[in-house]
Amino acid sequence: MSKVNKTAHPFDKVRLEALLNRRFFYAPAFEIYGGVAGLYDYGPPGSSLQANLFAEWRKHFIVEDHMLELDTTIMTPAPVFETSGHVARFADWMVKDIKTGDVLRADHLVKNVLEARLAGDKEARGLAAQPPDDKDKKRKKKIKTTAIQLADEKVKEYEVILAQLDNFSGPELGELCRKHDLRNPDTDNEVGEPQQFNLMFASSIGPTGQHPGFLRPETAQGHFLNFSRLLEFNNGRVPFASAQIGRSFRNEISPRAGLLRVREFSMGEIEHFVDPDDKRHDRFHEVRDIVLSFLDRHVQVSGSTEVTRMSIGEAVDKGIVANETLGYFLARINLYLIKIGINPERLRFRQHMANEMAHYATDCWDAEIHNSSGWTECVGCADRAAYDLSVHSARTGHALVVRQALKEPIVTEKEVPEFNKKVIGKTFGRDAGLLQKVVGEMDESQLVKLKGELIQGSTTISAEGKEFTLTPDILTIERKTFKQSTREFTPNVIEPSFGFGRILYSLLEHSFWSREQDVERGVLSLPPVVAPTKVLIVPLSAKEEFNPLVQEVSSKLRKAGIFSRVDDSNTSIGKRYARNDELGTPFGVTLDFASVANKTMTLRERDTTDQLIGPIDDVIAVVTELVQGSIDWAEACQRLPVYDGVQAVD
Amino acid sequence: MSKVNKTAHPFDKVRLEALLNRRFFYAPAFEIYGGVAGLYDYGPPGSSLQANLFAEWRKHFIVEDHMLELDTTIMTPAPVFETSGHVARFADWMVKDIKTGDVLRADHLVKNVLEARLAGDKEARGLAAQPPDDKDKKRKKKIKTTAIQLADEKVKEYEVILAQLDNFSGPELGELCRKHDLRNPDTDNEVGEPQQFNLMFASSIGPTGQHPGFLRPETAQGHFLNFSRLLEFNNGRVPFASAQIGRSFRNEISPRAGLLRVREFSMGEIEHFVDPDDKRHDRFHEVRDIVLSFLDRHVQVSGSTEVTRMSIGEAVDKGIVANETLGYFLARINLYLIKIGINPERLRFRQHMANEMAHYATDCWDAEIHNSSGWTECVGCADRAAYDLSVHSARTGHALVVRQALKEPIVTEKEVPEFNKKVIGKTFGRDAGLLQKVVGEMDESQLVKLKGELIQGSTTISAEGKEFTLTPDILTIERKTFKQSTREFTPNVIEPSFGFGRILYSLLEHSFWSREQDVERGVLSLPPVVAPTKVLIVPLSAKEEFNPLVQEVSSKLRKAGIFSRVDDSNTSIGKRYARNDELGTPFGVTLDFASVANKTMTLRERDTTDQLIGPIDDVIAVVTELVQGSIDWAEACQRLPVYDGVQAVD
Repeated sequence: MSKVNKTAHPFDKVRLEALLNRRFFYAPAFEIYGGVAGLYDYGPPGSSLQANLFAEWRKHFIVEDHMLELDTTIMTPAPVFETSGHVARFADWMVKDIKTGDVLRADHLVKNVLEARLAGDKEARGLAAQPPDDKDKKRKKKIKTTAIQLADEKVKEYEVILAQLDNFSGPELGELCRKHDLRNPDTDNEVGEPQQFNLMFASSIGPTGQHPGFLRPETAQGHFLNFSRLLEFNNGRVPFASAQIGRSFRNEISPRAGLLRVREFSMGEIEHFVDPDDKRHDRFHEVRDIVLSFLDRHVQVSGSTEVTRMSIGEAVDKGIVANETLGYFLARINLYLIKIGINPERLRFRQHMANEMAHYATDCWDAEIHNSSGWTECVGCADRAAYDLSVHSARTGHALVVRQALKEPIVTEKEVPEFNKKVIGKTFGRDAGLLQKVVGEMDESQLVKLKGELIQGSTTISAEGKEFTLTPDILTIERKTFKQSTREFTPNVIEPSFGFGRILYSLLEHSFWSREQDVERGVLSLPPVVAPTKVLIVPLSAKEEFNPLVQEVSSKLRKAGIFSRVDDSNTSIGKRYARNDELGTPFGVTLDFASVANKTMTLRERDTTDQLIGPIDDVIAVVTELVQGSIDWAEACQRLPVYDGVQAVD
Repeated sequence: MSKVNKTAHPFDKVRLEALLNRRFFYAPAFEIYGGVAGLYDYGPPGSSLQANLFAEWRKHFIVEDHMLELDTTIMTPAPVFETSGHVARFADWMVKDIKTGDVLRADHLVKNVLEARLAGDKEARGLAAQPPDDKDKKRKKKIKTTAIQLADEKVKEYEVILAQLDNFSGPELGELCRKHDLRNPDTDNEVGEPQQFNLMFASSIGPTGQHPGFLRPETAQGHFLNFSRLLEFNNGRVPFASAQIGRSFRNEISPRAGLLRVREFSMGEIEHFVDPDDKRHDRFHEVRDIVLSFLDRHVQVSGSTEVTRMSIGEAVDKGIVANETLGYFLARINLYLIKIGINPERLRFRQHMANEMAHYATDCWDAEIHNSSGWTECVGCADRAAYDLSVHSARTGHALVVRQALKEPIVTEKEVPEFNKKVIGKTFGRDAGLLQKVVGEMDESQLVKLKGELIQGSTTISAEGKEFTLTPDILTIERKTFKQSTREFTPNVIEPSFGFGRILYSLLEHSFWSREQDVERGVLSLPPVVAPTKVLIVPLSAKEEFNPLVQEVSSKLRKAGIFSRVDDSNTSIGKRYARNDELGTPFGVTLDFASVANKTMTLRERDTTDQLIGPIDDVIAVVTELVQGSIDWAEACQRLPVYDGVQAVD
């Protein structure tokens, strides 16, 4: 097995984007109409990669933990989001350029301007932050930096602001703009006061215009509104989780970050409903020893971004992560992301700071993946507590609760006063009600005292300035036993929420490299589990004599459940392999004249470009195991001899 | 193998709907908020059934014919739908109740009122159309029929109107309402003139409110706008097809037909791009002999709905179906629908009548499935010709064409006039341009005549009332050879378009029946390929000693790629099987004390309730083949002995 140097050339975003565009992984939607910011279409390899991320997600989460899958509605009547709080609070702060009226996101403005100033400072101090790269057109779009040195305390101040950026309110962002003279970098004009802009797309349902609706900004409400049905489906028991992959919409103010900030996106959401008094998880022991990188809120508030490596078991034990269920999901999220090909060294879990949290959350951890734009939130894992079920229940009058039969009924005893209705009416007339109220509000100790006095013969009660004498024929107090056999509660919700576009883009960055000998030859080292095509079938030429063999190999692979493609285009084998290196196809089999004569074929591995050879059925068996992940390439090299013929490929 | 009588009880829609609701196949969305007409959520079995319809669709169409999959954007800027014609023409005719203002769809009003009158006529003639059914609450919602006999010619007239219903324009529907006094059946009020209502949901993109957008009513435009990229991905060659499964939206006027008419739905669309001069299909021979039920437009215009059974080969040969590509897709659609469980006797292909066709189509056939609401369009298969690519190309200036290298260059000869620029200017001054224009517009025969005269010495041309004499030193005409080596054309599009909700609902109706011995015991005979769960694992009791065995069976099935569920709920095995008959689970395996002792288990088939028994691994092997469809139950009965123990189930 050959060694591969994947870091011979530094990561080049422009080169990657050119590849993704050329191979139609994705492209700006409505491009021939000039495009619309934040809307993208996935082409064949992108759709397929995305479909594989979905399929693996279903297997890893839904099937593995027996979750209940849902497919709910996007178009949502306004009252639902009034109740959930989204109409009032699902908004970003925007500022307007006071001269041009251009709209900017307030926090992005602060971030971009301060970062540019810090970069300028570094330059002035002769500490060029990043190697200048003339080919990097994207970076040129960033704010131009000017080499101006800042006072040391200014540098510190800016760094602290940036570390806490997500924690500022709108008015605070406005204050920062004034204090530090932050202007629209495109025009150098001042900006106005931050205003809230609701991020939901609005529409109207039906022909009368009387039913306003919104496109959902998350799938979660669809789970909550169906809670009673889900609970019944699960035979009335908690914990259980519902799960859904679906499209959501956010009318972002001015999205400019490719797939990292879009107006329409596919998300996967899990709502795990759990007893608020018992957030243990019965599979937590399976993940306890998994080590994650944590960045908790205390570290951030102190102005630092240093992560701590720790097992999830330890993090829960120490209270850094609030409970086992939250911890279980953080570990499972970690496993999923690594399985699909995210570099574990570029993955961390960051806790939200108090002001940053969504209005419904009581705690939240983001799985952040590092890419060329910095650390990007790709999965949120929030404890929504009982917020959503409670507000929908209050608004609609439908109880969204769990009724649990208690294994042991709770038996309680208490003193119960009982009035003789006839006698009390005759004795006290209109004051009878007052007396009953006063006694009814007494606590246990007062009742015990009263009871003692009544046993002695009589007792006196004062109320509204009057005094009343009570005797045992009017009032008796007895100790009674009460038995409670069911318990009713609103479950809490732990919600892992995945943005697939961000994961997909980060994965493409982590997978991309160029061949050591030729920077123009890009490779996407996607793991077989998510690669759009698993095996490329390459007939040496388009000659008809290869057709039966191509059919045979293709159909045998299909029977083994392996998705293959035939490339019989009119170019050299080398070019065909290069194209498929760009598409991330991990394996290729070549059919040549020897295949027809000897029933053998070669097997090529994408990253090493190593080739093995063997009888067709043996090669199919080996490639099947490779794709299923039961063996790796090193093991494959033990199973089949190296192909030492002239390699047409390199 | 036992015989099963699935028709012992007549189809009962109320019973089916109760089952679908109880088992949460789907339910009205936002139900606790009072619901919104035409919006539904899919619960666990419904989502799973839908996901299986998608997966089979991908296999049957995309993988089988190497289509290019896409995932494009729902939120679409207005100019796209202005160009496509949807802003102007994607509308239904609605009428308003003149007193209450209630809005009704005009064609539905005509249909419902006339059908009610015809039913009343039948009743009056003593020919009760349908057995009255007191439990059928849904039918009660239909218009109350009154037993009034109609004149024979009136009956005929109504029947002809109903047969041609889809062919009427808005004003014609208004005319029908006046002529036949068709009123709002809910209020008996007259209705106003039909008005158009656009069915697209409108919204606005970005924070400024200056970019109107619509939610797509079909996925097709996303394919067309990406045509150039797709063509390049396919190495510049046609024919090829793109395919997409995605959500679309139509703001229906007053949807009341369950899943059959909804405001938000999942659709699957294929756009097959083909040379307009060659609509042959290279796999047509594979489907040529498949027999379909056709209802062509001529039969409908004549007022009849009688179908003709014919092979697709014959239908194309006779010109009933316009070309092989259209024919290929009709046959493939037929195969798909039968594979997933649609009853072939309740499936027909109906051609659109001229006025009924969507504005972009030149021909269209619907696959209609019969269910309790009548014949329902479930798949449309339209020839959109070059409409879409042409209009988008014209609007944007981007050429959406195929450039094809001609195998044989086309060689043409023609007469080419050439002026001596210097001499003509000197001779005719400002008239030189006029002369060149006149000669330039001459056709071949005129040029030949001129050439002859020039050879003779001179010729005379009149233009704008003047006469000009030309000589060979001013004008020469020569025969030249032209070679055209590429051909440029706008491909035509054949579009199969699937509404999955309608297919899914029809499938549920076709699959539903009640056990002969007990009408309360409903069964959904979903084929294994689409059933939400393939195998139910039933441990005799929740005793812990069964756990290792349950784990073992469950993990072996998972390895074989079979989706199973464990039901260890606290009820009898019979109840658990009855529940899973309702969920459509085709097979069940029971683990009891004998399993622990002898390593055997029983295998139960849903429809027959037959049970077989064998060693655990043998049963797993048999059930795997059953689920994959390589054997049927009769064959399974040959492979494993009948279980003759006491059957806890029935």
